[in-house]
Amino acid sequence: MFGNTLYVEKIQHALEQSNFPATPDNLYDPVRYMLSLSGKRIRPLLVLLGADLFNIENIDDALPASLAIEYFHNFSLVHDDIMDNAPLRRGKEAVHKKWNESVAILSGDALLVKAYEQLAFVKVEYIPELLRIFSQLAIEVCEGQQYDMDFESIDSITGDQYIEMIRLKTSVLLGGALEMGAIIANATLVDRKHINNFGVNLGIAFQLQDDILDVYGDPSTFGKQIAGDIIANKKTILYILLKSKLEQEDTQEFEDLLTNKAITSDEKITRMKNLYQKYHVVQEAGELKGKYTHLAYESLQKVNVTEPQKKELYSLADNLMRRTQ
Amino acid sequence: MFGNTLYVEKIQHALEQSNFPATPDNLYDPVRYMLSLSGKRIRPLLVLLGADLFNIENIDDALPASLAIEYFHNFSLVHDDIMDNAPLRRGKEAVHKKWNESVAILSGDALLVKAYEQLAFVKVEYIPELLRIFSQLAIEVCEGQQYDMDFESIDSITGDQYIEMIRLKTSVLLGGALEMGAIIANATLVDRKHINNFGVNLGIAFQLQDDILDVYGDPSTFGKQIAGDIIANKKTILYILLKSKLEQEDTQEFEDLLTNKAITSDEKITRMKNLYQKYHVVQEAGELKGKYTHLAYESLQKVNVTEPQKKELYSLADNLMRRTQ
Repeated sequence: MFGNTLYVEKIQHALEQSNFPATPDNLYDPVRYMLSLSGKRIRPLLVLLGADLFNIENIDDALPASLAIEYFHNFSLVHDDIMDNAPLRRGKEAVHKKWNESVAILSGDALLVKAYEQLAFVKVEYIPELLRIFSQLAIEVCEGQQYDMDFESIDSITGDQYIEMIRLKTSVLLGGALEMGAIIANATLVDRKHINNFGVNLGIAFQLQDDILDVYGDPSTFGKQIAGDIIANKKTILYILLKSKLEQEDTQEFEDLLTNKAITSDEKITRMKNLYQKYHVVQEAGELKGKYTHLAYESLQKVNVTEPQKKELYSLADNLMRRTQ
Repeated sequence: MFGNTLYVEKIQHALEQSNFPATPDNLYDPVRYMLSLSGKRIRPLLVLLGADLFNIENIDDALPASLAIEYFHNFSLVHDDIMDNAPLRRGKEAVHKKWNESVAILSGDALLVKAYEQLAFVKVEYIPELLRIFSQLAIEVCEGQQYDMDFESIDSITGDQYIEMIRLKTSVLLGGALEMGAIIANATLVDRKHINNFGVNLGIAFQLQDDILDVYGDPSTFGKQIAGDIIANKKTILYILLKSKLEQEDTQEFEDLLTNKAITSDEKITRMKNLYQKYHVVQEAGELKGKYTHLAYESLQKVNVTEPQKKELYSLADNLMRRTQ
């Protein structure tokens, strides 16, 4: 079996060979720029690991689908950054800031088209099914992004609604990537479902963990501003659980923390964490994370291949779920 | 053979059956809204006529590809309207005005995904080739839109550059639609090329005619503000040909017309038309239109089916190219 490093190198090499046309440069320069920003390439890697899990003869057969997933992911980042008015992406200027909104819209569109185009390079017998699965995950990612934007102006979101949103916005892409690899390796429909569920549940667990680490992670390893979500009033799982449990006596305190600009960031973080503690929301979020992590491992167990064959995916999941607290 | 009316009804019926999900409504309401605005459905009709030309057994087999083309066309309208900051579309509020930019970006994305999804409903043996042809026309439409935006800030565009831009932005979609129908009707590669060329050249001729009619058309039948392109300083074929031929003695007059806000619209139109006349640009634009019309008919003639079988497409081309001057 190949190791992850070799696979990531394969993906990196394929991305470098992409050969987008020189002109119009305002269309293709942003495409090249996005793809050159150093992502971890986890999503395209999942396609290769999904194919590898089912003993694909030649791993290169899964590369076009792997690129399709990476192009799609970058399409969604370019467009999301416009919608979220995010100035930075992977530490560099976002496309809509470095160029402008029109360029970002159109180069995002081009990435989506280029993603689909890659599917045409897969062995013909797998193309129709890949087209279906890929379109389904693509439309679900759009739905997730819309729910995420809708939630900004909705006052009471339940934990279930939040988890459904992150399932659509971030997790179906992981499950779909694995399943696309499985399809190309000729896996059974049942096994395809299991490996897809593994990816989706792992994605949900990872996002919940991300919400927890934002507040409680080690700033030296987590790599983001500590408690940035609290400062920005972001509706994370912690915010949502707290809001749903808040008793009369604390509603004023919660409102103050969200709206009173006189409160310093440090004070806001301390007082919000006090509320989290009082209502045991970190514990509850941790339990939810545990539930989805368990569901993920359970799905992987059900896949009908030998345990050694699953080693890479177990180790990927372990790495993702054991980031420094 | 079926008539156009029956085909358009088929398309209309299929669009009404589309059954997009109810939620998230901010994603799917704009999709439904766009598709309900009464377009002429020429592009999806071309898919059916392309299939009909090559004697497809069951025309319904071409309906998914026909919907794919209509969804794609509407995707490009939604995104173009954001980029062009156009307030209206088909006489109604554009999506980014009726909702907002984020909704327009995302619902446009959804339409593009839904377009590709339709290809999965075609007979499997045709899917790989349709995926290739569709992706090629899709990326070319993006390139055309980028050139169109680039041209706004470029001072000297040649007639050839302009025609290449409209070929990409508007015409490859017509050629591609016909070719997709031809693919599903199992046409030969040579015939596919001919029918594609017919559509592309017809599209270029139509766009050139549109530029001419904007200034010289009968306002009661053309249905737009007369000479709106002159008022807006739009870089049409007339503007570009004039600029390339302008002699020293008229450059000041041309500059004045473009920039002097004290000149009334009526006066601007009259004086610009004087320049057009002096430099014979309408005649030259007419000749270009004639050239591409001829190339279109020539391509259709080359298609290896009986002449009666081509009747519908000849009559469509005649209708498009003989709009009231």
